[in-house]
Amino acid sequence: MFASRAWDGGRAGFSSVDASLLDRSVSRFAPAAPLYAQIAESLLEQIESGELPPGARLPSEREWSEALGVNRMTLRRALRLLGAQGLLVRRRGDGTYVAKPKIERQAAHLVPFTKGMERRGYLPGARVITLEKRPAETAVAHELRIPVSAPVFFVRRLRLINREPVMLERFTAPAHRFPGLERHDLSNRSLYDVMEKEYGVIVVRARQSLEPVAAAEYEAEVLEVEPGVPLMLERRLGFDQDDEPVEYGEDLYRGDRFRFVTENALLES
Amino acid sequence: MFASRAWDGGRAGFSSVDASLLDRSVSRFAPAAPLYAQIAESLLEQIESGELPPGARLPSEREWSEALGVNRMTLRRALRLLGAQGLLVRRRGDGTYVAKPKIERQAAHLVPFTKGMERRGYLPGARVITLEKRPAETAVAHELRIPVSAPVFFVRRLRLINREPVMLERFTAPAHRFPGLERHDLSNRSLYDVMEKEYGVIVVRARQSLEPVAAAEYEAEVLEVEPGVPLMLERRLGFDQDDEPVEYGEDLYRGDRFRFVTENALLES
Repeated sequence: MFASRAWDGGRAGFSSVDASLLDRSVSRFAPAAPLYAQIAESLLEQIESGELPPGARLPSEREWSEALGVNRMTLRRALRLLGAQGLLVRRRGDGTYVAKPKIERQAAHLVPFTKGMERRGYLPGARVITLEKRPAETAVAHELRIPVSAPVFFVRRLRLINREPVMLERFTAPAHRFPGLERHDLSNRSLYDVMEKEYGVIVVRARQSLEPVAAAEYEAEVLEVEPGVPLMLERRLGFDQDDEPVEYGEDLYRGDRFRFVTENALLES
Repeated sequence: MFASRAWDGGRAGFSSVDASLLDRSVSRFAPAAPLYAQIAESLLEQIESGELPPGARLPSEREWSEALGVNRMTLRRALRLLGAQGLLVRRRGDGTYVAKPKIERQAAHLVPFTKGMERRGYLPGARVITLEKRPAETAVAHELRIPVSAPVFFVRRLRLINREPVMLERFTAPAHRFPGLERHDLSNRSLYDVMEKEYGVIVVRARQSLEPVAAAEYEAEVLEVEPGVPLMLERRLGFDQDDEPVEYGEDLYRGDRFRFVTENALLES
């Protein structure tokens, strides 16, 4: 399956780029896809099929463009295209590598970050950047069905897996539902765990949306990526067991580390 | 709701940026979010609440930074942050405007593009870029459960709404299921419609994934956006009424025009 790549072995040899694939694409409609896009597609195939496993180092652009019989600019454009999709990682002064496979999040279900990561064998962590009580702004108040300027808790946390920063979380909750929230250690505990154990509030369902965004300078800095790289913005309005809105979240996931999957999307009639 | 913005009127006046909001955020944990991020958040609130409706023109950076009492670089960074999220649109030599609201796609359901757009009152269209028969590459063959190099149809189409390019579609289907597919006019018909009416194949469910990616040069050119802007890559493996995989799709949506929503995500136990 495309999202649980079946690695078929450890063959990382780069002679395996099959140059015969490059001229197969005789388009019947103009304009045809350019040569670099076709090279990228064939390289993508090799990554997805496991011929090029995660961590494999690519040959130098000079050697490789000669082997393929294309000019360096064409090859570079193909590599940029795959780099933009998070499939290749460039390490300065070193070389280009095949990226680690992405971690899956469920797009159709509500899976708390901590639980989702633990289930996949990762060690999740959190670093609190901001925790403050402040008046609710108009849009957030509307979402949470509280008066404008009513007090809310606002939390900004950096989420880590295996000590690597992978997600920047912004979280707003009505203060009257969680008195004393600031006293709990949110760097060592899941927010959902605190909400349930300390306040008896269980988020049972949510409205969620996903949007691709470019990393701003501050976001790039804390997530340790380059400014401008693609991130996934997940917005979430969570409802408790009485169907009251109790949290409004905006999570920014690193696009090179995550994909959002719906296992069984049924045709809408 | 955050994804169906409730515009509360036509007040586009820019004096409405509330400078008093700027000093509310006294962080209890270092490092605090920088000033420009706070300005961006407050501007975002005004966009989401409808105080700043779509199409509203922003004042000049000079006037505005003076009114806010911040330097121009700080304001510019805040605007770049919102621009990166597709909320602002810069028109060269003219000014900056609040972007149109995004169109919603269902993340948890399979909704054919044509049907989804028509339901929302848009006029969908398609322009065929590539339609060819070619041998299946390893990964695609594996997905479609056909032998490597078995013939597949490969289609690249540009999808339009109201004549504006908004999505670039790549579609692969096993050739033996759709003999003569190339004879059908795919610029005027939905692929799902052709599959059903001409071949009796109905895609009833799919495995889908969403990833944020940066627009490569070719993609940017056909989608009429700047290279590097965020796009949403939706991959889809579609199964027919006999649960056979019949289509593998990779759709690239403009990030400034779409968001992907799950209306009712239930807590996974």
